[in-house]
Amino acid sequence: MQFTAQQIGILLNGNVDGNPDVTVNELAKIEEAGTGSLSFLANPKYESFLYQTNASIVIVGEDFVPSSEVNATLVRVKDPYSAFSILLEKYNTIKLNKVGIEQPSFVHPSARIGKDAYIGAFAYIGAGAIVGDNCKIYPQTYIGDNAEVGDDCTFFPGVKIYHDCKIGSRVVIHAGSVIGSDGFGFAPQADGSYNKISQIGNVIIEDDVEIGANSSIDRATMGSTIIRQGVKLDNLIQIAHNAEIGKNTVIAAQTGVSGSSKIGEQCIIGGQVGIVGHISVAKGSQIQAQSGVNRSIEEEGKKWAGTPFSSYTNQMRAQVIFNRLPDLERKLEQLEKALKDKL
Amino acid sequence: MQFTAQQIGILLNGNVDGNPDVTVNELAKIEEAGTGSLSFLANPKYESFLYQTNASIVIVGEDFVPSSEVNATLVRVKDPYSAFSILLEKYNTIKLNKVGIEQPSFVHPSARIGKDAYIGAFAYIGAGAIVGDNCKIYPQTYIGDNAEVGDDCTFFPGVKIYHDCKIGSRVVIHAGSVIGSDGFGFAPQADGSYNKISQIGNVIIEDDVEIGANSSIDRATMGSTIIRQGVKLDNLIQIAHNAEIGKNTVIAAQTGVSGSSKIGEQCIIGGQVGIVGHISVAKGSQIQAQSGVNRSIEEEGKKWAGTPFSSYTNQMRAQVIFNRLPDLERKLEQLEKALKDKL
Amino acid sequence: MQFTAQQIGILLNGNVDGNPDVTVNELAKIEEAGTGSLSFLANPKYESFLYQTNASIVIVGEDFVPSSEVNATLVRVKDPYSAFSILLEKYNTIKLNKVGIEQPSFVHPSARIGKDAYIGAFAYIGAGAIVGDNCKIYPQTYIGDNAEVGDDCTFFPGVKIYHDCKIGSRVVIHAGSVIGSDGFGFAPQADGSYNKISQIGNVIIEDDVEIGANSSIDRATMGSTIIRQGVKLDNLIQIAHNAEIGKNTVIAAQTGVSGSSKIGEQCIIGGQVGIVGHISVAKGSQIQAQSGVNRSIEEEGKKWAGTPFSSYTNQMRAQVIFNRLPDLERKLEQLEKALKDKL
Repeated sequence: MQFTAQQIGILLNGNVDGNPDVTVNELAKIEEAGTGSLSFLANPKYESFLYQTNASIVIVGEDFVPSSEVNATLVRVKDPYSAFSILLEKYNTIKLNKVGIEQPSFVHPSARIGKDAYIGAFAYIGAGAIVGDNCKIYPQTYIGDNAEVGDDCTFFPGVKIYHDCKIGSRVVIHAGSVIGSDGFGFAPQADGSYNKISQIGNVIIEDDVEIGANSSIDRATMGSTIIRQGVKLDNLIQIAHNAEIGKNTVIAAQTGVSGSSKIGEQCIIGGQVGIVGHISVAKGSQIQAQSGVNRSIEEEGKKWAGTPFSSYTNQMRAQVIFNRLPDLERKLEQLEKALKDKL
Repeated sequence: MQFTAQQIGILLNGNVDGNPDVTVNELAKIEEAGTGSLSFLANPKYESFLYQTNASIVIVGEDFVPSSEVNATLVRVKDPYSAFSILLEKYNTIKLNKVGIEQPSFVHPSARIGKDAYIGAFAYIGAGAIVGDNCKIYPQTYIGDNAEVGDDCTFFPGVKIYHDCKIGSRVVIHAGSVIGSDGFGFAPQADGSYNKISQIGNVIIEDDVEIGANSSIDRATMGSTIIRQGVKLDNLIQIAHNAEIGKNTVIAAQTGVSGSSKIGEQCIIGGQVGIVGHISVAKGSQIQAQSGVNRSIEEEGKKWAGTPFSSYTNQMRAQVIFNRLPDLERKLEQLEKALKDKL
Repeated sequence: MQFTAQQIGILLNGNVDGNPDVTVNELAKIEEAGTGSLSFLANPKYESFLYQTNASIVIVGEDFVPSSEVNATLVRVKDPYSAFSILLEKYNTIKLNKVGIEQPSFVHPSARIGKDAYIGAFAYIGAGAIVGDNCKIYPQTYIGDNAEVGDDCTFFPGVKIYHDCKIGSRVVIHAGSVIGSDGFGFAPQADGSYNKISQIGNVIIEDDVEIGANSSIDRATMGSTIIRQGVKLDNLIQIAHNAEIGKNTVIAAQTGVSGSSKIGEQCIIGGQVGIVGHISVAKGSQIQAQSGVNRSIEEEGKKWAGTPFSSYTNQMRAQVIFNRLPDLERKLEQLEKALKDKL
């Protein structure tokens, strides 16, 4: 893919300032850009890089006035960061634009595949499964019997969707993630062994969800584990059976949500957080990395931290004093002694 | 799968009370059940749902007397919850009853596959490997050279069993789990680099073990990493080389057990727990989620919590005071001042 | 594989003491060894096992004098542990010496495969990808378009390398690990939803790196996430976009490194550690398991622990007092009372 400054200007509705015929074939940060790269300058604190960069084209604000000589061709636009984001997205859309069915792949005769889909080699589409239009199902992916996938989804290599799960449209799932494995439910027996409780529910993932690599979302015992619209999950996350993650909630890597817990909308949850089962977390809650949430959060929109968690400000204070505990104990002993001596 | 109330009654050895010809094709919770669903009522506190439910059949206790009108056909049995569990299991057994060898799959000429096995497409069975009777090996699963798998096992899609590992009977492993990867052993060198210590042992998994999705169990350096009979492991768990997990021990998601540690029988270990290497944990220990176990636990049957861990009751008390540390420090300062002023 | 004591003696440049024709076909610890096993005695505290072992051959120090009768044939060498390590490595090299291209596999016509490579069944090598000489690419592995892999690499079953990633030579990656999944980058929108920031960078893994099972390393937004030479990563580790892990650094299982953080050379990082984004960790830092690193570490070569972390010795002291907090509070209350009473 190679573009001239002129083509970039037309694409971004911007003005070209410099050689309109210079070409670029990659996108790069201004401090790392080489010849043939296109970069951007949005934050004035990076301006000095503009006078040193080898980038062939730099996107700048429409009113930007350089204070020194610039070698790159400038493309002037209203919002350089947004303009650059558009280019990033176009770049990836072109780059990852796979279509067609590679062989060998396994599509059960009773499965239905939408138009313009990509089915990679060694992908498996089970009996009665439905895959919507424009989906990209990368190699070695598994879509179990009667699973349903909407339109415009991308499942990277090795994603596993168990039978009966339902995935919305524009859902992206990264390599190795597992959707619909059995919930962890066992009934203790008199002899110390455990009997498995069959897990016959499913997982429902609504539209516009993105899930990172090697995460696992268990199916419900009965009913559904539900990931609501717009949720973003990072890598290596555990969502247990019958949990529900609210609309537009974002969860960072290695966090675990236990069985039947309900996380509200618009929450922001850090990495390595643990959330116990059968609780609810209020809308807009922000939970710091490595926290342990062991009871329901009722108040909306608050910040929390610690194990067991409390308000963010309280934790910050307590943690500071924790580090001074040896001092505190020493003072207490001195006081005891002083009191004994003097009284 | 469609059943009449009469068929359900015969299956569960129960009495049909209402229309015996009404049919059901799914199982559901009583509060969520629609027409065509079979549900159950075991706990009296859910009785009101019985008078509102759209379920076509509800299993109830043999002596249950409704206090209001019921639309559903009732099936009366001794223990409604157990009866329903039996149906859940039968449902899943029928649903997941796959048999036969899908193509393309790879079975080495020297491998042996038992009777009535299911080998999914893109599964790989290596040289000298043995797979027992009635096993279900889902698509994209890997069973390495000379690995042995007993009877009645289910490996969901993408399970990876390395060479020489030995798996018992009735073992269930969920998608993406890895059995037999190299232990993490490296010898530091004078120049700061590390030399790999070859890991030539294996993993032994005994009968009736269940392992969740995306967990990893490393092979021993020499000898075996051992998962004893009846152990249940959740998702994203790490078991390091030469560890041993005792009979009927249950471990929740995202917990890690370090190298050469031995966990006793009948332990219950929460999620995100870390257990250091070369220690032992006594039989029947219960360890709270997110704990850090940094030394052996000698006493059997106790509850533990915290990082580093101590007795559960001690931790609970200390954690409460931790949250009051700012108060505690203020009091101490006031005391200091008071003492100075007054003496 | 079967070897005589004489062959072992020649291989290790050692002297055979006993029957030179006895044969061995496996390696074992001296306390577990049976007939046909080769073992070693390096640590004098295990000497008593030598007089009980069923091992057929035991490697001992060149000057070792037994104090009792020995049944095994001895092979005397300068350094028994090193000699045994060499045998371990040879054993594995012979055992895992796969070569050739199994079918069905998918190698794009524009991909280049080096000489003497092993490509397992159901492996996928994308358009423009390069795989070096002597690589072992196990079944169900994915190497995306234009990815580059050096010589002598081993990727175990189900490894996923996304497009454009660059892997050095002698790199080992265990089953299920994902290299190059999208960084977790989303721009919040006015309506509460998030827009994906396209991730067009890649992952660079230098020579001699080993990565465990089911780990994930995200590609950079732009530029590269970099794993430097000689790094060893355990299982279930998360490395976020644009992070950099310094030369010869070792990280234990289930640890997470957040976006854009730079870990120095020769660090030793325990399991389940969390490291926040946009910080740097100095060369030679040692970080205890389950720590939370929430700011940069500037001093080189120090030990750290705790969440939030502080110096190892300070944490150890504070943690001891934490467990005594109920006592401390009681004392404080007594002091308060005493002061009130007496003054």
